[in-house]
Amino acid sequence: MERDMFASLSPLDHRYWEANQDLFTELSSYLSENAYTKYQLKVEAALVRALAERGVCPSQVAEEVEGACAAVQPNDVYAEERITRHNIRALVNQIRERVSDEAKPFVHLTATSADIMDTARALQYKDVTDAVLLPLLKKLMQWLIQMATAHKHTPQIGRTHGQHAVPITFGFYLSEYVSRLGGRVAQLARARERLPGKLAGAVGAYNAGALFFPDPEVFESEVLAQLGLRPAPYSTQVVEPEYLLDFVHALVSTFGVLANFSDDIRHLQRSEIGEVGEAFEPGQVGSSTMPHKRNPWNFEHVKSMWKEFMPRITTVYLDQISEHQRDLTNSASSRFVPEIVVGLAACVNRLVKVCGRLSVDSENMARNFTVGAKRAVAEPLYIVLAAVGHPDAHEFVKQLTLQADATNQDLLSLLEDNPEMRLYWDKLSDTQKEVIADPTRYLGIAARKTEQVCQYWQAALADVWPGKS
Amino acid sequence: MERDMFASLSPLDHRYWEANQDLFTELSSYLSENAYTKYQLKVEAALVRALAERGVCPSQVAEEVEGACAAVQPNDVYAEERITRHNIRALVNQIRERVSDEAKPFVHLTATSADIMDTARALQYKDVTDAVLLPLLKKLMQWLIQMATAHKHTPQIGRTHGQHAVPITFGFYLSEYVSRLGGRVAQLARARERLPGKLAGAVGAYNAGALFFPDPEVFESEVLAQLGLRPAPYSTQVVEPEYLLDFVHALVSTFGVLANFSDDIRHLQRSEIGEVGEAFEPGQVGSSTMPHKRNPWNFEHVKSMWKEFMPRITTVYLDQISEHQRDLTNSASSRFVPEIVVGLAACVNRLVKVCGRLSVDSENMARNFTVGAKRAVAEPLYIVLAAVGHPDAHEFVKQLTLQADATNQDLLSLLEDNPEMRLYWDKLSDTQKEVIADPTRYLGIAARKTEQVCQYWQAALADVWPGKS
Amino acid sequence: MERDMFASLSPLDHRYWEANQDLFTELSSYLSENAYTKYQLKVEAALVRALAERGVCPSQVAEEVEGACAAVQPNDVYAEERITRHNIRALVNQIRERVSDEAKPFVHLTATSADIMDTARALQYKDVTDAVLLPLLKKLMQWLIQMATAHKHTPQIGRTHGQHAVPITFGFYLSEYVSRLGGRVAQLARARERLPGKLAGAVGAYNAGALFFPDPEVFESEVLAQLGLRPAPYSTQVVEPEYLLDFVHALVSTFGVLANFSDDIRHLQRSEIGEVGEAFEPGQVGSSTMPHKRNPWNFEHVKSMWKEFMPRITTVYLDQISEHQRDLTNSASSRFVPEIVVGLAACVNRLVKVCGRLSVDSENMARNFTVGAKRAVAEPLYIVLAAVGHPDAHEFVKQLTLQADATNQDLLSLLEDNPEMRLYWDKLSDTQKEVIADPTRYLGIAARKTEQVCQYWQAALADVWPGKS
Amino acid sequence: MERDMFASLSPLDHRYWEANQDLFTELSSYLSENAYTKYQLKVEAALVRALAERGVCPSQVAEEVEGACAAVQPNDVYAEERITRHNIRALVNQIRERVSDEAKPFVHLTATSADIMDTARALQYKDVTDAVLLPLLKKLMQWLIQMATAHKHTPQIGRTHGQHAVPITFGFYLSEYVSRLGGRVAQLARARERLPGKLAGAVGAYNAGALFFPDPEVFESEVLAQLGLRPAPYSTQVVEPEYLLDFVHALVSTFGVLANFSDDIRHLQRSEIGEVGEAFEPGQVGSSTMPHKRNPWNFEHVKSMWKEFMPRITTVYLDQISEHQRDLTNSASSRFVPEIVVGLAACVNRLVKVCGRLSVDSENMARNFTVGAKRAVAEPLYIVLAAVGHPDAHEFVKQLTLQADATNQDLLSLLEDNPEMRLYWDKLSDTQKEVIADPTRYLGIAARKTEQVCQYWQAALADVWPGKS
Repeated sequence: MERDMFASLSPLDHRYWEANQDLFTELSSYLSENAYTKYQLKVEAALVRALAERGVCPSQVAEEVEGACAAVQPNDVYAEERITRHNIRALVNQIRERVSDEAKPFVHLTATSADIMDTARALQYKDVTDAVLLPLLKKLMQWLIQMATAHKHTPQIGRTHGQHAVPITFGFYLSEYVSRLGGRVAQLARARERLPGKLAGAVGAYNAGALFFPDPEVFESEVLAQLGLRPAPYSTQVVEPEYLLDFVHALVSTFGVLANFSDDIRHLQRSEIGEVGEAFEPGQVGSSTMPHKRNPWNFEHVKSMWKEFMPRITTVYLDQISEHQRDLTNSASSRFVPEIVVGLAACVNRLVKVCGRLSVDSENMARNFTVGAKRAVAEPLYIVLAAVGHPDAHEFVKQLTLQADATNQDLLSLLEDNPEMRLYWDKLSDTQKEVIADPTRYLGIAARKTEQVCQYWQAALADVWPGKS
Repeated sequence: MERDMFASLSPLDHRYWEANQDLFTELSSYLSENAYTKYQLKVEAALVRALAERGVCPSQVAEEVEGACAAVQPNDVYAEERITRHNIRALVNQIRERVSDEAKPFVHLTATSADIMDTARALQYKDVTDAVLLPLLKKLMQWLIQMATAHKHTPQIGRTHGQHAVPITFGFYLSEYVSRLGGRVAQLARARERLPGKLAGAVGAYNAGALFFPDPEVFESEVLAQLGLRPAPYSTQVVEPEYLLDFVHALVSTFGVLANFSDDIRHLQRSEIGEVGEAFEPGQVGSSTMPHKRNPWNFEHVKSMWKEFMPRITTVYLDQISEHQRDLTNSASSRFVPEIVVGLAACVNRLVKVCGRLSVDSENMARNFTVGAKRAVAEPLYIVLAAVGHPDAHEFVKQLTLQADATNQDLLSLLEDNPEMRLYWDKLSDTQKEVIADPTRYLGIAARKTEQVCQYWQAALADVWPGKS
Repeated sequence: MERDMFASLSPLDHRYWEANQDLFTELSSYLSENAYTKYQLKVEAALVRALAERGVCPSQVAEEVEGACAAVQPNDVYAEERITRHNIRALVNQIRERVSDEAKPFVHLTATSADIMDTARALQYKDVTDAVLLPLLKKLMQWLIQMATAHKHTPQIGRTHGQHAVPITFGFYLSEYVSRLGGRVAQLARARERLPGKLAGAVGAYNAGALFFPDPEVFESEVLAQLGLRPAPYSTQVVEPEYLLDFVHALVSTFGVLANFSDDIRHLQRSEIGEVGEAFEPGQVGSSTMPHKRNPWNFEHVKSMWKEFMPRITTVYLDQISEHQRDLTNSASSRFVPEIVVGLAACVNRLVKVCGRLSVDSENMARNFTVGAKRAVAEPLYIVLAAVGHPDAHEFVKQLTLQADATNQDLLSLLEDNPEMRLYWDKLSDTQKEVIADPTRYLGIAARKTEQVCQYWQAALADVWPGKS
Repeated sequence: MERDMFASLSPLDHRYWEANQDLFTELSSYLSENAYTKYQLKVEAALVRALAERGVCPSQVAEEVEGACAAVQPNDVYAEERITRHNIRALVNQIRERVSDEAKPFVHLTATSADIMDTARALQYKDVTDAVLLPLLKKLMQWLIQMATAHKHTPQIGRTHGQHAVPITFGFYLSEYVSRLGGRVAQLARARERLPGKLAGAVGAYNAGALFFPDPEVFESEVLAQLGLRPAPYSTQVVEPEYLLDFVHALVSTFGVLANFSDDIRHLQRSEIGEVGEAFEPGQVGSSTMPHKRNPWNFEHVKSMWKEFMPRITTVYLDQISEHQRDLTNSASSRFVPEIVVGLAACVNRLVKVCGRLSVDSENMARNFTVGAKRAVAEPLYIVLAAVGHPDAHEFVKQLTLQADATNQDLLSLLEDNPEMRLYWDKLSDTQKEVIADPTRYLGIAARKTEQVCQYWQAALADVWPGKS
């Protein structure tokens, strides 16, 4: 059924589809109702193929059913469902209608609806993760690695509590996200890998399968092997909910890393900070009434999408509970899980685009560094004084900084005339003196750590996506 | 843009649209992107009309703009937005393109984007509540009232902890939902009534408006009065988030009442209980593999939808936080709020339909009552014994019930021979003796309470929806 | 049982108790287990008093029971509960032990445990709201009102998206929180007012009460009237969960307003912004290693506490669901609800203290204003140009601002030489010209709005807390 | 400071402590403020030891500091914090006070507060997991394994949608929880293993450490190795939040499995089902007013605790966001995380106790089985008919079951006279005929699967807890 896109009810199907047409068309091929039906038909076909291999039905029956599965359209299934009020029975009826009477009995034989649906879902999530999510995340990782490497020596004032702390480099800052996003990608890859299929029947005890095979578990493995899946070690009517939950946890915690990154970047774009900027395109408008505005709206958008999708994992925690061999109260709710994949993919895509044109305002970064570094010298000063024996170095330096603030002087200039200071100055090593005189030397191992992290994840990316880099 | 419905990404736009075509088409006319644009255009038109009434522009300019607003289509706006990257500027440009040069400057004059958007949202939520949500809820309330009244005298065993407790009536049970749902409807009506509009400019201080009027707040009221809205008492760039939050709280807590009702009913349908049943339609299938199954799937569906939508209020709690005069991190997230309305409306609609064909199995209800009531007599027995002076009635009766359980006898039959009992029996009033002998007399004021609650809400319904019953 | 405070498991009972000793001692007198027991005993006493007034027992029985209720200690109840495994039966046994055999039967007569517990909870929440929460919130409101009024004319650059927008005043900014916090206080007062008591027996049908009175509902009102409560219009074994839910919604949404305020203030304290500051106390340390640090940790603390307590409302939404006449799955969870009150009270208290010593850095505020206002002139310029007939004022001004950015010039200085500008300049009114020349005149009605909001809520405070101001 | 336990504000510190005294005393030794301080002192001591090993200070300094660390008490630290307003500075001052002037400078040298706190937290969570959580979970697993094995052949009617489905065994049902709980235990063990320590200084770049060592990362490893921890691959001021998040995810999803199990068991205890029961203790009371009640309150309690603790993971997802090198908004919130461990441990402990006295009512289980199995024969009947060539077996059997319901007859008895049936009967194998005649033979591989699952996890338990079984 065709419908005006803007008549849709979900912003994923109107506004954000419009803004991400290529991506959403691709996501639709894995996650829409069309796709779900297609995957279910794939499972039904695999089942009959396996029955034929076991000799339960002739191999031409399998071929017939495979042909029928290729022909059935979602519209047909929905039309049938209006009668059966049961989605998989409708699907089965539509396959049966397209095969000979001889083949009819073997369609869906030994299976329960959830066998088909849970297995199809596992396939969808695996495929969309491999084909869309991981490649997008890889692009973002590569931008981060490249940018971090390029700026591994660019001094930036570190900030804790929104206050200038001690120096870092901009590359070191970015490598935080190389590391955290890398960790989540690994978690996601692991969770997708573990998603199992299932063909254990109506209550998980292989009751129906055991009518035909002494080893219905082996038969289950045969069906699933055709689809590239492993069976769940135990099922009720449905697969244990924790596999999906771990997958969604990986999605949502990846989203959290993006939200943190976006918050950071939009704060770095504050009028008073201005260390980075998002390039404006010709024709673009910042505000309908304030023609001078340039807003970090893409990063705000990612934060906002995270606020929409993060709480949805609560639904999946609730779906852990299903009475006895299964109640249906996870049925509707689990149909919304694909939206979390969509929301995340859209945001990674957005970040890949907007980061590609992110500019660093070196002047502002240097200016803020200079302001902050003047006071930041307090830390190394306290530490080296302590190391050379000042019994109360922290308090001594704290008092100096209060004095500097009160008199609006540099901490360094106060040092020169300080009699207590003179007692210790000569005990400092040359390097220590230099660090105190020049805060750009108080960068710790920022550059080296940046390299390490980037190199580690550059290599790991290849592992996570073998054959895909 | 036309698109295959089954290519959509949200189940609201495929599966649940398909299952609720009339309802969702109607909801779409209030909540889709088409509708949002239409409402925004309505606000822009009202603004220029008010400018004309103030003499800022000629009245034919207002007419011109009104005409243009009627002509602009969402597709035009989206095409323009691809250039401006700003949705309201795109809308404004499209209106401006359709009016004379003389009229152009007055389009959107004094307004900021959020003035248009927040006001449009308030209108959408009010209209959909009045036109769709409240009438649906009223239907459900009426079914509840009617059913409760019909069964006000039908004995049912009360259940606490899933264990038989003391008697109630089925009507009394249903009146719980008359009362709770009624309370939520009143809350919803109040929250919808309080949703304000806003025309206070880019930071809420009426900076732009004050360039034209000494009383921009009065002007704001004039614009909003045309739309049937009141202004917010204070705004930043956006309306205070608590109005929307209270509205969503009303939606979500209404949903919670439906979820509880659905849980109750599906437990009453358990194979072992069987007090109610959902009529099966010809052709309907309960399970793809178990031909004998009749599942309470509609009630499971409602519970499942609640699991999907309840957690989403967390997003709205998160959206309370917006830095300074506003950050944009509530922009994408607030676009998903209409889905909560859709989810709730779909479930009320589902319940209206399925309750209409709910059957009560009087035989099973009576059987369960009899089993439970036998032991339930323990409560009145303990109480009247206490009242006539037994110093330890609770313990005495508890021991009797343990004895009854151990010997598999009726509590009542044990009483007859109990020497301690005989000490007190004569002190009981006739009514008290009758209640102990016949548990159907131990119903408290179940029937009277049912009437009270139903009458109260029957009358209140007229109030909540004046002119709509 | 005495225990080392620092052996406690909840930070409310160690760290935050230590930091708020007076407040937490007071909160404990309403919300601890001691307090809960005390309130339950109050309800049991009121019940027997009402029984005596109805002539069910002699009035000296009521006196006896009242005396016993005053004597029972939580430790006694807990010791008894180790035997009964039932908290209210333990309480009842302990009262019974302290009265004559004649009085024993009348203790708890007609009541079920939930009658006592739900009624006690309503009393606790009402009392703590009136005695602690509302007075604290009033103090914070008064600080806000006073500060907003004092700064109603102090120019501040408005900020949207973290970017300089158009001018406001600092008082206008603060009045946002006067208004939002005021709105929540009103909501909280309303929700606390509506918390009902209950004495409707084991399944809500007054089964036990009806053994004694033809009008058990009236009897319920009599008991509750002694406690200052109204009965719930309908109950199962427990009060409808929505009353408590609305109360918690009021608490949590109040918390959200505080979190937003705290975020705002800590961003205003950023090193680069520095418009406000929290006075440092002698001896205070900002960082264990960076002696120069002054962190906005109190405001960070409030945000952090909101992150802890906001999600807990999900528990209360979950507790809407209780099967049939009640399951016990809300029992443990509802015992944690008082913690939300504690968390909120602690944060209001913290803000009252820290706001009292908040300093405004007028110099920085003025400096940021000047920087931002230079570009902010774009808005009034576009608007007045549009009003005098420029057909494309927004685009014209946007191009000017891009030019200003590119050439690092003031927007105003660019205007002078602009030929297009000269076409319109003479059409502007003197006031309009002045606004463009001097952004401190582009404040809209910031000061007037500040006064309005403050006056409204100053007056409303008296209403919300009659006799308490 | 000693305080009456019942004056506490958290139910963990009064009611649930009272109910779990041994357990909570043990948990307190890992998770209280006393414990946190003790762990922090442990980290400070390890730091100075490592400094001495590197030759930065003499080894007797390390000994002095170790001695001081053993002597400092939480009360001292809190008293000091009242002056410093900084917890770790207070700790450091208290250590310094107890050592010679020579040793003073080396206390906390190169460290920032978060180095100490994050590392201490990792140790706490590891230790409590190993010493308390995993052993408790193991006990529960062992009960499940034992019970499942014992009942691997006990027929039970499978239930989907609360409706009788097809047969399983009670042991097969229990092995669901062996498998799911086992999976979570493995996840928990993995997440605890990955919790890292940190000694990377104020912004993560080892600024301070690099003043002393060319290889501050190696030094970090040396400190942490003494504590049995590995360093985080990257840190800002704090450890990447995802490690803790994964740990809490493991906790909360384990809790979800327990909640599902508890729901199952309490439904199996419903008056109408009665397949299992919780043994009542002498003196125990089920209801304060209904002396006959036996409630599944322990299982309700676990569900209720899950409702309290599950939503708290939202806080940890929120804590993923920390601006730049760290803001403090995760500080208060992270102090509540230990409560989740406590809540979970309390529930596992409760289940271990109550499961130990869970009785199976074989009579009721058999009765329900018989009722359900009569109709359950529909599934194998449909399947074997299909397999022998019935073209529309599902519909045929569905009609038969409708007829059986309508006429109140057994499905089997209807078969005998059915002419269509006779066409196929002879084609069935003997085994197939037997299954249809006797539903206790339609158990699939329930028993074998039970064995497999139990054997797998019995072996795996040894792996997860080497040396602890």
